[in-house]
Amino acid sequence: MLLSKLVNLIKRGDSRFIQANIFEDIEIENAASLDIASKNQISFLEENNILKENLSETKVSAIITFNNSEILSLLESHSISNIVVENPRIAFAEVLNFIYEKFTLNPGIDDSAVINRTAKVGENCYVGPNVYIGENTIIGKNNSIYPGTTILGNVRMGDNNIIHPNCVIYENTTLDNNCVINSNTVIGSEGFGFIPKDGKWIKMPQKGAVIIKSFVEIGTNCCIDRPSVGNTFIDKGTKIDNLVQIGHGVKIGKNCAFAAQVGIAGGAIIGDGVILAGQVGVNNRVKVGNNVIASSKCGIHCDIEEGEVISGFPAMKNKSWLRSSSLFRKLPELAKKLRHLDKK
Amino acid sequence: MLLSKLVNLIKRGDSRFIQANIFEDIEIENAASLDIASKNQISFLEENNILKENLSETKVSAIITFNNSEILSLLESHSISNIVVENPRIAFAEVLNFIYEKFTLNPGIDDSAVINRTAKVGENCYVGPNVYIGENTIIGKNNSIYPGTTILGNVRMGDNNIIHPNCVIYENTTLDNNCVINSNTVIGSEGFGFIPKDGKWIKMPQKGAVIIKSFVEIGTNCCIDRPSVGNTFIDKGTKIDNLVQIGHGVKIGKNCAFAAQVGIAGGAIIGDGVILAGQVGVNNRVKVGNNVIASSKCGIHCDIEEGEVISGFPAMKNKSWLRSSSLFRKLPELAKKLRHLDKK
Amino acid sequence: MLLSKLVNLIKRGDSRFIQANIFEDIEIENAASLDIASKNQISFLEENNILKENLSETKVSAIITFNNSEILSLLESHSISNIVVENPRIAFAEVLNFIYEKFTLNPGIDDSAVINRTAKVGENCYVGPNVYIGENTIIGKNNSIYPGTTILGNVRMGDNNIIHPNCVIYENTTLDNNCVINSNTVIGSEGFGFIPKDGKWIKMPQKGAVIIKSFVEIGTNCCIDRPSVGNTFIDKGTKIDNLVQIGHGVKIGKNCAFAAQVGIAGGAIIGDGVILAGQVGVNNRVKVGNNVIASSKCGIHCDIEEGEVISGFPAMKNKSWLRSSSLFRKLPELAKKLRHLDKK
Repeated sequence: MLLSKLVNLIKRGDSRFIQANIFEDIEIENAASLDIASKNQISFLEENNILKENLSETKVSAIITFNNSEILSLLESHSISNIVVENPRIAFAEVLNFIYEKFTLNPGIDDSAVINRTAKVGENCYVGPNVYIGENTIIGKNNSIYPGTTILGNVRMGDNNIIHPNCVIYENTTLDNNCVINSNTVIGSEGFGFIPKDGKWIKMPQKGAVIIKSFVEIGTNCCIDRPSVGNTFIDKGTKIDNLVQIGHGVKIGKNCAFAAQVGIAGGAIIGDGVILAGQVGVNNRVKVGNNVIASSKCGIHCDIEEGEVISGFPAMKNKSWLRSSSLFRKLPELAKKLRHLDKK
Repeated sequence: MLLSKLVNLIKRGDSRFIQANIFEDIEIENAASLDIASKNQISFLEENNILKENLSETKVSAIITFNNSEILSLLESHSISNIVVENPRIAFAEVLNFIYEKFTLNPGIDDSAVINRTAKVGENCYVGPNVYIGENTIIGKNNSIYPGTTILGNVRMGDNNIIHPNCVIYENTTLDNNCVINSNTVIGSEGFGFIPKDGKWIKMPQKGAVIIKSFVEIGTNCCIDRPSVGNTFIDKGTKIDNLVQIGHGVKIGKNCAFAAQVGIAGGAIIGDGVILAGQVGVNNRVKVGNNVIASSKCGIHCDIEEGEVISGFPAMKNKSWLRSSSLFRKLPELAKKLRHLDKK
Repeated sequence: MLLSKLVNLIKRGDSRFIQANIFEDIEIENAASLDIASKNQISFLEENNILKENLSETKVSAIITFNNSEILSLLESHSISNIVVENPRIAFAEVLNFIYEKFTLNPGIDDSAVINRTAKVGENCYVGPNVYIGENTIIGKNNSIYPGTTILGNVRMGDNNIIHPNCVIYENTTLDNNCVINSNTVIGSEGFGFIPKDGKWIKMPQKGAVIIKSFVEIGTNCCIDRPSVGNTFIDKGTKIDNLVQIGHGVKIGKNCAFAAQVGIAGGAIIGDGVILAGQVGVNNRVKVGNNVIASSKCGIHCDIEEGEVISGFPAMKNKSWLRSSSLFRKLPELAKKLRHLDKK
């Protein structure tokens, strides 16, 4: 695609176009990170980007960047075409979608898929090899269900969803529209509910279901459990990375982002816009307010108020955790000073 | 089901029935948690239950509860039918089983399942679509093997087991009776055994097997590895949540409960009745005594004596961990005081 | 196999044979750990091995051991045949390979496998039931692809690889030779790339790929993500345990070993020979030098220099972490002493 055409597409996009300086209207074949980009490729550069140092040596044909006079004059002195926008990352995302044709699967149901005769699959769906769809399940339009996925009975799925290979979706799950469920993820498995009695465990039947609203994305090898009664619920626009555990009856708000290996125990309630970094754990029945940010490995053992930035285990305010952590390193020194004072 | 009939079933159950007060012998169609339960539904209320506050507003038709005069008089004043038992949670579990018919699969082997001609499948089993069963594997009676599961050769499986979709059970695994293996769990995969030599890793062949006794339940996306020689062993009645790693040669006692994302390294020996909370790690070859309780994110690096309650990393007694953790938050204050004293 | 024949095989192996003392040239049928080994079995004994105490009672027919005069005289006094080598563990690994015939699958493509007509499968491959292989994928010689695995389009796979059941390998993945991918592992899934905008998340398309070099082994239920542009890269000889997350664009050197539940965030660069113990986390874009060793649950938040041994979170040198951790336990005592001094 010609660079000038890309510029026009970016102008119409969401990155807030400012200006473009085209030294040569070259064909852009590919996108790459700045450290390895070469001719006929496009890259992007953000403020504080450590790749700035590559600017003087790069052979890249065009760079999407922010409005910084120093960088822009550097680009001009090297005659590198540049597209200036307020949000280079968004422009680059758009460019990736323009350059790479979406991998489109031909709609149709593979001969090896097994679909119960009471199930319904809407128009324009792809149903891959070795897929199973159970009884009374209703699947909307334009869904892609990749090979090896098992969808059990009474599932309700809207339109435009992508279910990657080897997923399992259990009975009674509801999935709205435009969701992405990555490979080997299990939705609606039975919650971990056992009652102690005389040294043994009695099973609490898990008769609830999982409800997932639109534009939710879930990574690979995740587990979203269903509760004994009621629902496990994930609201619109929330994004979940790989190997994440969502316990039975958990409620998750809109537009959250959870990094890999996060675990949320049963009955926890997570607000809107919450960000949990990698390997964070949330105790059962805990309430986490809107827009809370928890740094990696944080253990959230009690309710957290809206907007807090927290760290450590047990979780505390990030600022005081930073201070305490830095003193943890100095404990030998502090103890020595204390012994010294004690002797006096 | 009529409320009076439910009461009779509870009387014969394990919750230790005390009394019932039926204001109206209404049809119970459903069970729900107290905060959302409505007419024709039954719920339960435990001591210290934060849902007590909903009592004055609920439209629920019946509540299973414990023997507390305050609560009982409150229920009577609102004319809410109630069933009083010693263990409301167990009664509620029984009620869920009564109300919701067990999802029963029609026995039979799906046409798309591939079963080696030397394998044997006992009577009254369900074998779903796209299942594979390998050579010389012997499967008992009344087992449900859901779609997409792969069972390799020489497996021995007893009766009444449920193997959820897309599981993998490796060669030589033994699974007794009444076990539940949830989706995408792998049993008998090769242990992580490599020997360092000249900066490279030489593979220790993993020729052992996994033995799982009766009434064990394992969550989704778990890994139970086999050892180089001998067995990995899980004893009767142990329950394991999702995303749990059980290393090669681990021995686990009876009636343990491990929460999600627990990891147990190779050769560890876990006693009976051990409870490990979420994201706990156990070092290799460590011995954990009977009835130990480890709180979430605990790192068990050395042997733990019977009955200990432990926390933190490295693991210590929970009580001293609580004290040390609370002082960790106060480290800046302590350091300041120390500086002050030092100046004097 | 006769013990004398095993000795000859060990002589030709990599364990550096020293001597053998055969009391009876018995048939070796089996290998076992020393605590449970019996007649016609072989075991091994290492320095500092806690199983030494079993020596006086064992019925084992032969022991592979190191060159220690005390142990050797003990073995002779009990007339236990012994094979003395410099590295007993390597000799035992070799013996396991000699005794147990490799589980060999008959080459051939199962009737239930679905292979796109544009895909190519090399000679002498096993392709199990319910496998799917997508368009333009090219698979070399002597590969074993177990049941239920999904390999999407444009994958390049060399020779002698083993892909265990129910794996997923995405478009454009490159896998060289002699790799082992254990069950339910996903390679090449889309990285977790979202851009915050007006309280929502905009998806960064993930158009890169995963490249895995020869002799890499990956455990069960792992996730190896692909990046938006460029590659996620795992170099020769690296071994990865179960439930491990490798984020998008991560580069991993040669001969690393990562234990279970490790998580490496996007863009991190890991050197050669790095050892990460269980549940370690690595922040995004962090650089970890060659031969770094991180103990379990360590959180690596910043660059680590070559050869460091690190622990804790935030990661610090293992030695100072040990000192600080031991003082963490004594915080109540230190605080008391400080209060006492303050009063004076």
